[in-house]
Amino acid sequence: MNAEMHPSRWGDPARAAALPEATRGLVEMVFGLDDRPAVAEPKPPPSALGRAVIDRLAAVVGADDVRVDDETRRLRTRGKSTPDLLRARSGDLSDAPDVVVRPGTHDEVAAVLALAVEEHLAVVPFGGGTSVTGGLAARRAGYAGVVSLDLVRMKRLLAVDHTSMTATLEPGLRGPEAEALLAAEGLTLGHYPQSWEYASIGGFAATRSSGQSSAGYGRFDALVVGLRVATPRGSLELGSAPANAAGPDLRQLFLGSEGAFGVLTAVTVRVRRLPAQKTYEGWRWPSFADGAAAMRTLAQSGLLPTVLRLSDESETAINLADPAAIGGDGATGCVMITGFEGEPDAVAAKRSAVSAVLTGLGGTPLGADVGEKWAHGRFDAPYLRDAMLDVGVLVETLETATFWSNLDRLYADVKAALTASLGDPSIVLCHISHVYETGCSLYFTVAAKESADPLVQWDAAKRAASDAMIAAGATITHHHAIGTDHKPWLAQEIGPLGVSVLRAVKADLDPTGILNPGVLIP
Amino acid sequence: MNAEMHPSRWGDPARAAALPEATRGLVEMVFGLDDRPAVAEPKPPPSALGRAVIDRLAAVVGADDVRVDDETRRLRTRGKSTPDLLRARSGDLSDAPDVVVRPGTHDEVAAVLALAVEEHLAVVPFGGGTSVTGGLAARRAGYAGVVSLDLVRMKRLLAVDHTSMTATLEPGLRGPEAEALLAAEGLTLGHYPQSWEYASIGGFAATRSSGQSSAGYGRFDALVVGLRVATPRGSLELGSAPANAAGPDLRQLFLGSEGAFGVLTAVTVRVRRLPAQKTYEGWRWPSFADGAAAMRTLAQSGLLPTVLRLSDESETAINLADPAAIGGDGATGCVMITGFEGEPDAVAAKRSAVSAVLTGLGGTPLGADVGEKWAHGRFDAPYLRDAMLDVGVLVETLETATFWSNLDRLYADVKAALTASLGDPSIVLCHISHVYETGCSLYFTVAAKESADPLVQWDAAKRAASDAMIAAGATITHHHAIGTDHKPWLAQEIGPLGVSVLRAVKADLDPTGILNPGVLIP
Repeated sequence: MNAEMHPSRWGDPARAAALPEATRGLVEMVFGLDDRPAVAEPKPPPSALGRAVIDRLAAVVGADDVRVDDETRRLRTRGKSTPDLLRARSGDLSDAPDVVVRPGTHDEVAAVLALAVEEHLAVVPFGGGTSVTGGLAARRAGYAGVVSLDLVRMKRLLAVDHTSMTATLEPGLRGPEAEALLAAEGLTLGHYPQSWEYASIGGFAATRSSGQSSAGYGRFDALVVGLRVATPRGSLELGSAPANAAGPDLRQLFLGSEGAFGVLTAVTVRVRRLPAQKTYEGWRWPSFADGAAAMRTLAQSGLLPTVLRLSDESETAINLADPAAIGGDGATGCVMITGFEGEPDAVAAKRSAVSAVLTGLGGTPLGADVGEKWAHGRFDAPYLRDAMLDVGVLVETLETATFWSNLDRLYADVKAALTASLGDPSIVLCHISHVYETGCSLYFTVAAKESADPLVQWDAAKRAASDAMIAAGATITHHHAIGTDHKPWLAQEIGPLGVSVLRAVKADLDPTGILNPGVLIP
Repeated sequence: MNAEMHPSRWGDPARAAALPEATRGLVEMVFGLDDRPAVAEPKPPPSALGRAVIDRLAAVVGADDVRVDDETRRLRTRGKSTPDLLRARSGDLSDAPDVVVRPGTHDEVAAVLALAVEEHLAVVPFGGGTSVTGGLAARRAGYAGVVSLDLVRMKRLLAVDHTSMTATLEPGLRGPEAEALLAAEGLTLGHYPQSWEYASIGGFAATRSSGQSSAGYGRFDALVVGLRVATPRGSLELGSAPANAAGPDLRQLFLGSEGAFGVLTAVTVRVRRLPAQKTYEGWRWPSFADGAAAMRTLAQSGLLPTVLRLSDESETAINLADPAAIGGDGATGCVMITGFEGEPDAVAAKRSAVSAVLTGLGGTPLGADVGEKWAHGRFDAPYLRDAMLDVGVLVETLETATFWSNLDRLYADVKAALTASLGDPSIVLCHISHVYETGCSLYFTVAAKESADPLVQWDAAKRAASDAMIAAGATITHHHAIGTDHKPWLAQEIGPLGVSVLRAVKADLDPTGILNPGVLIP
């Protein structure tokens, strides 16, 4: 198990590191260095809750699992967006919960919700704490206090069905924990978002997460076959068959509901056999458009690798500072990563078929080194962001998705919006990491010299990019959910009647509005 | 375009035929023959609507597209379940609409809904009229009248995107019409339910239809990427990307909503290139369990043909009265149909891989004749039902789905429930026609000597089978939707809180309850 994350940084504090020397030189050249002094982790404001409420919560889950100490509340404050980190770095922990409650079972979750209704406490489910859209920053005004409903005790593998190839997992299991339990059964979930080392099963479902192997294993929402949900009005058990026509698919209301409709207490997922082989390799394309067209061909031919990613020219140049890796000095273009997982025969057959298509379309194979390098560092980017923030460089990501015919426009418009808003010096990088027959995602990474108020600086860039997404008819998020940050654009994406439906569902399941108030619903 | 269907029979009246002689002999042997005299098609009750309302409707869609004549109303009465046919055969057309209104555009649909709110008219969307669950039998009590909202004028292909491989279709297009428009673009939807010759695009979406080629093309709900919906409270446009994390997937509320939440006025679907080759063949298995296990292996190996079906021992014996077709006199076991569609190279490769797996698992190839015979007659079964009803034999189907590990129990329990309820002489047949990694569907066909009151007779059998499905933890329907007939079991399947959510959505979108009242919502 990884160590707890501080509110001001990503990941295990023991793995934090300064910028590598080569990167530091590059950053100095582009942005200048503005080394920030290490700051003490701030303390949260005092808990607003009195003894009586604490005692009532303790009666439900046990006194040891109701925590009001500063340290526990500090570690349950906000998520991991760059604004979240900046606020914590500036000493602002105003979103800290008043109490951290750790239920151990579905019934305890239900009992906590019932109590929260009676006491009018806001309840924020906490899985991995990796939200990058403000999903843990519930509205405090109007509530007697804020409860962080920490699912850390709900980490069981409840059932495995080797015949149907399903597994039922508790929501508090983090990525590596879930995979370890499944591996002991010879199984895998195959869901590896960048946040995997910390993010939880409940969070994957509640935010419609998508992992780096989505081409092979599917998005998380496509992996879910069943859900158990606790709400203030009772419980639901959904998912009676692999597919059905028994009315609307209510599972799809809770996938992406971000704790605003209920608390997911068990998630039944499709699983696969542990792959005997995993292999990754690189391909070079003359341009981002050429590489994207090749991805489209693969997706529309039903010939997808397990992993399929493509960096644009800028991201390729930054990530592969050594041009030898992509074909020697002066080499330009874009790098694609393909990954294959499975039984050796199947891997060989798929790899051969994919290679034939890519070669035929003008791709140049770069061999395994580029692919293995990507695979090795795939969860490290958030640590690099901390090191960049430490020298005064703002780094953040955002993402969207659209249909293939709209890809060029979306890419150009979002990139232009970010570039114009951030000004000079700034860098805008992009990659495609999730592909479908009908379209794909676009994931942008930006870096800019921090202004005097980086929160204002990023807010302007984020707004410009988000406006560009909606104007292009794309989605405000392919896999990061709505949280508090995306609400205005969700309202534009689904329209006023779509918002009305969400509010109606919320009012039905959570009539007093205690569930993650201010999150998701515009 | 096929001729209109009468309320008492399936399909084109010109294609109706008496039982083939061989079948007639078999039916006589098992059930005895009770030839029924041909009855005149009944007349509907007089329209309850006065001139003023008719004139208002005419002002919206034009006088020619507001019909109150008996013939038009007769042809829009109920769907095609056996109870529907029996009621019409007995002269009961009490569910006839009071008026048939044919809007030509989304805006006209919206205007009709607004008028229906003002006049408190129940509105029943009509696409193909093929519901087998009472989806067209709206509640009349409490309304000023019932409008059949006939989508027959909305038959355009609104957009084709060859890059993204999507097409936007109007809801009134029937299966063959949609395929013809797409074929002119070199494309196919690949959705072929047994009702295909009559069923409509809007109906496929509103009922979560699944076609005989679902293994290759996917269920209809998996084909939908976008929806346009008209409701009494306004319109929605859903589907901004191939996949997204922008909150709950609201498309999944309207898929399966059966006209109770809104009227689908445009459906954007994923399309594929027209297959250059289609080939079907048969396999024999020692038992239903052996064949099902082979299907599971294929599904969990990612090696699915385009079509994959398996008849149980009884259905095999009935369908293949000639034992030579499955291996000569005395041959027993079960017949599986595999179908492959696509480019010849891809077909050959997939067929070879599937054949290797099936042979390895103990399947015996039966060659192309059995497969082609199935493909040739794939839309004919409903005509045979009429011919059976003509000689006093009740024939009906029902279906469910479950996870692989629960398949044996579900099969045994539903079969036992039907057999016990229908008594002697009756026949219960079953096949698997839709498979997934985690489970499959079960489709039952029953035949029984009609009792004095076949509606009561079937109602008892249907209740027994439905109770068995829910008791086994399966779904009440894999691809026939809820209608009016399945409501009690939907309530058990999704629980009281699930029903509450459906009611909340309904109340939000249709506050006065004009949309298909009595359908879907328990």
